Amino acid sequence: MSTVYVVGLGPGAEEQMTVRAQKVLEHCPVLIGYNVYIDLVKEQFPDKIFLSTPMRKEPERCRMAFEEAEKGQDVAMICSGDAGVYGMAGLIFEIGKEYPEIQMEVVPGITAASGGAAVLGAPLMHDFAVISLSDLLTPWETIEKRLHAAGMADFVICLYNPSSKKRADYLQKACDILLQYRDVGNICGYVKNIGREGETYQILSLKELRDTKVDMFTTVFIGNSRTMELNGRMVTPRGYKL
Amino acid sequence: MSTVYVVGLGPGAEEQMTVRAQKVLEHCPVLIGYNVYIDLVKEQFPDKIFLSTPMRKEPERCRMAFEEAEKGQDVAMICSGDAGVYGMAGLIFEIGKEYPEIQMEVVPGITAASGGAAVLGAPLMHDFAVISLSDLLTPWETIEKRLHAAGMADFVICLYNPSSKKRADYLQKACDILLQYRDVGNICGYVKNIGREGETYQILSLKELRDTKVDMFTTVFIGNSRTMELNGRMVTPRGYKL
Repeated sequence: MSTVYVVGLGPGAEEQMTVRAQKVLEHCPVLIGYNVYIDLVKEQFPDKIFLSTPMRKEPERCRMAFEEAEKGQDVAMICSGDAGVYGMAGLIFEIGKEYPEIQMEVVPGITAASGGAAVLGAPLMHDFAVISLSDLLTPWETIEKRLHAAGMADFVICLYNPSSKKRADYLQKACDILLQYRDVGNICGYVKNIGREGETYQILSLKELRDTKVDMFTTVFIGNSRTMELNGRMVTPRGYKL
Repeated sequence: MSTVYVVGLGPGAEEQMTVRAQKVLEHCPVLIGYNVYIDLVKEQFPDKIFLSTPMRKEPERCRMAFEEAEKGQDVAMICSGDAGVYGMAGLIFEIGKEYPEIQMEVVPGITAASGGAAVLGAPLMHDFAVISLSDLLTPWETIEKRLHAAGMADFVICLYNPSSKKRADYLQKACDILLQYRDVGNICGYVKNIGREGETYQILSLKELRDTKVDMFTTVFIGNSRTMELNGRMVTPRGYKL
């Protein structure tokens, strides 16, 4: 019985992969993924069969994985970050219904919330909400409702997909919602290209974040009301008495 | 200049550590942590100096790390899961102010939300909120406010520290709040001992979860209104057309 593994590579750099993920990639003869991710692992695992489909062909990519597995070989579907956080794991299980003889296993990776937090300092020391600003698959009304709820309840907030060419003002819209509940000085941060060449980060106020342009390779963090800037790091206190 | 690394081990198993975390532990002569986590790495890294303090002595443990670093050696403060999610990273930066000559770096790990999700299937395919039910450092009113917000806005919810001896009915209280917004049949799941011996999981309804006793080694997942049980797995659809 063959297995389709859904493997999270972590945030870009080879060293951010887990030992388990590395072993699974070593084990599987076939690696499937979006071109950009295949390029990330090609050098490290040169003797594999690499298959890919373009962006927005995700269901096709999953079926390709199962069809390769039906030939009797184990297959790794690779994703950046964690395959289980806005990744391909869900689609694999949904499409896996059509292939009852193939096993499925998720191999978790470091998601951008964890990877970005480590770069900024320690913003996720307290309750947090992860929200994607992409309305490709989600109505904007749902995204707005979640921004209101997270803003109101003083969650630390981590925004995935904060911007794209078509959605240049979505981060601004999100900040405007949060400014209904938070001070203009609320500490925020963003990290671009986590774990990759060109990694940069910035700590700034919610007001400044509102007027900042970020790209689709950026992860944004909005602190809660107690988040501080501490020697250039973004730190949310857990509440310990020092 | 010495460095205090704050290292997340991932959810228990050696293989769930990142390659980077493993290299940092190999590099540092001194490893500091809560006893249980020290025991997890002792076999793998036998030639280290191991230091620890009991639970609830977290500030003392951080100062111990900086004092060892002041002797001119690099130190790893180890945590289970991700040091940056309810972990020691924040406290290290807060106490690090007292030791300006010591550098600090967070090495992220797989947090229980990612590790548990992979065991259950794919519950975190959409926006999610992470909430700790421990009121040791947080007023219960704040926790309740966040449960209401997350329930109302249809977030997938991941609960850390869902129970302890003193807080035996907190999960029940949390479910009662969520039942104000969600159907009794809302798909939920929990994972006990993620990545460790005795790992078990269960998928069940919100009503059933309300009447379930879990322990402090358990991570609980409450799906959103679209989360399904699919061949024994908990899957939240991302919204792709199949």
